[in-house]
Amino acid sequence: MTAQMQRIVLASRPKAAPQPENFRFETAPIPVPGAGQMLVRVIWLSLDPYMRGRMDDGASYAQPVPIGGVMEGGAVGQIVASNIGGFKVGEFVNGPFGWQSHAISDGTKVRKLDPALAPISTAVGVLGMPGITAFVGLNDHGRPKAGETLVVSAATGAVGSLVGQLGKAYGLRVVGVAGGADKCAYAVEELGFDACLDHRAAGDARALRAQMTEACPKGVDIYFENVGGKTLEAVIPLMNVHGRIPICGMISWYNSGGLGAGASEGANLLPQVWRNILVKRLSLRGFIISDHYDRFPDFVKEVSGHIRDGRVKYRESVAEGLAAAPEAFMKLLQGGNFGKQLVRISDDPTR
Amino acid sequence: MTAQMQRIVLASRPKAAPQPENFRFETAPIPVPGAGQMLVRVIWLSLDPYMRGRMDDGASYAQPVPIGGVMEGGAVGQIVASNIGGFKVGEFVNGPFGWQSHAISDGTKVRKLDPALAPISTAVGVLGMPGITAFVGLNDHGRPKAGETLVVSAATGAVGSLVGQLGKAYGLRVVGVAGGADKCAYAVEELGFDACLDHRAAGDARALRAQMTEACPKGVDIYFENVGGKTLEAVIPLMNVHGRIPICGMISWYNSGGLGAGASEGANLLPQVWRNILVKRLSLRGFIISDHYDRFPDFVKEVSGHIRDGRVKYRESVAEGLAAAPEAFMKLLQGGNFGKQLVRISDDPTR
Repeated sequence: MTAQMQRIVLASRPKAAPQPENFRFETAPIPVPGAGQMLVRVIWLSLDPYMRGRMDDGASYAQPVPIGGVMEGGAVGQIVASNIGGFKVGEFVNGPFGWQSHAISDGTKVRKLDPALAPISTAVGVLGMPGITAFVGLNDHGRPKAGETLVVSAATGAVGSLVGQLGKAYGLRVVGVAGGADKCAYAVEELGFDACLDHRAAGDARALRAQMTEACPKGVDIYFENVGGKTLEAVIPLMNVHGRIPICGMISWYNSGGLGAGASEGANLLPQVWRNILVKRLSLRGFIISDHYDRFPDFVKEVSGHIRDGRVKYRESVAEGLAAAPEAFMKLLQGGNFGKQLVRISDDPTR
Repeated sequence: MTAQMQRIVLASRPKAAPQPENFRFETAPIPVPGAGQMLVRVIWLSLDPYMRGRMDDGASYAQPVPIGGVMEGGAVGQIVASNIGGFKVGEFVNGPFGWQSHAISDGTKVRKLDPALAPISTAVGVLGMPGITAFVGLNDHGRPKAGETLVVSAATGAVGSLVGQLGKAYGLRVVGVAGGADKCAYAVEELGFDACLDHRAAGDARALRAQMTEACPKGVDIYFENVGGKTLEAVIPLMNVHGRIPICGMISWYNSGGLGAGASEGANLLPQVWRNILVKRLSLRGFIISDHYDRFPDFVKEVSGHIRDGRVKYRESVAEGLAAAPEAFMKLLQGGNFGKQLVRISDDPTR
């Protein structure tokens, strides 16, 4: 009998928040790599908010996952068979292997990992896509200057936690926004943020804004946008003249039915946002990290140094087994994760 | 009997659109300039949308006009008495003289005009604040490249008409949006725009967007934002990747009660705008022209050249007499003007 692999495919497109029936768990024979291909056993699958966009059919910066297609995702794995020169059996690699236990790859977008330098799981976290997102967004679009105030939403997430820690390294006052007292305590006590506001406990946007006003006595120079919604509504009038808003995500709106429908928190907010952009001469810039991979060497050099020095910490939240991925992903979109969300697909021999 | 001057003061703050009772016409003795002062007879008063903001009490980039204070405004006048070296009786000057027939000035923010170079009224129009606003917004924030598509709202206004003409000079496809068939015909036939859409005739945002999609077959690279509202809603999904939105004004929202209240056209639009900023990696930048007066020499050099060459045309809409200023201003906010809105306060001896 042929050895079997597991995969999770997109069964149907979600109407709002993804439901279990949007995903389907399948088994299939493990494929055999052809010429110029290799077979990778997946170890760590990364779950990230951007995947929600791939489930929709609308115009985006990337093709949607087709119905019946394997869910996309970056992952870390080990080569178990290879017909590609330069990729050897036993080596650890990071690549777009998807929500599955085994992947065929031609080496495109695959990089080799040295397990001696850092735990291999960091290749999809603090030293991978979320990490460079934080690095480029804060540095290139946020243009931080020591003494300024930075507000970062989703503050304990894979991106936000590095944004805030880099902010501290650059001499900024850093105020996080996160959902839950445990996350806020972690941001202040472990990550060294100056303050962290619990948007769940705070209540509505007005109440959150009152807390933010206290936490940011000199106003806000940089708002690192991961969420949209209530946090955006709270922060926008607090922006200082010539403030910067790198726009990295809008997770609170990802499930709201696409182009604004049902996004009640956005009602009537646009004129206020526009007025603040104008009066405060704000710069807003949306960015997609795949436009900026040329910054990878600078990023890895700086952040791996910070990790070695203990200035940057990271936290992983691990779901066990591929079958647990949909639930972990749905929880991630609701802010239920704590730290970089991973799924352990198979044993990590380096741990 | 002392000679009398006339002035218009802010009688009360408007709740939404300004009403006649928000203004009060007063007479007073013509003041006598003290040491280091001069007296200017005002000839041309400029009316501009930004003045609406000065009537409100909210936080803005400038102090509000106090109740009972003279309405602010840039103007062109002639010196009738002077105790300042370098400013002589008979000279023509541009400065913040306000809505009044005579102004005392200490020379701050006043520049002398040479009537031989251009009609003195252009100092508050195409060669003044609206002109440099167009120049800086398009060049420094719009970063135009030949072959790109530019959409400009309020296309026949003092700012928009120069934005579009500069766009043509730079090799862009230029699509204006204006209110009324006569304005649109003027934009295409006189100003040389490639197309101009009549937002009044078009109907709602969806209908306007359909027309804009046809007029911009390659999408929109630069949206020069003067208005907010329906035009913004129409254009935002048409923006191209790496598009730029210089935000110069939001006239359609100025009268909507300040921070979003009653701005029904903005309802539920913010998530859509945010999604487009993110997916298209847009850059948005609010700007206030007083931050950029260092660009004045470059601006005057380039645009006065274009005027001499006939590449840039301008149009003035003249209200007669100070008492006509409030009505002309209220009409301006409704888009009822056509070209740069001036008020002739007294005789222009150069015409």
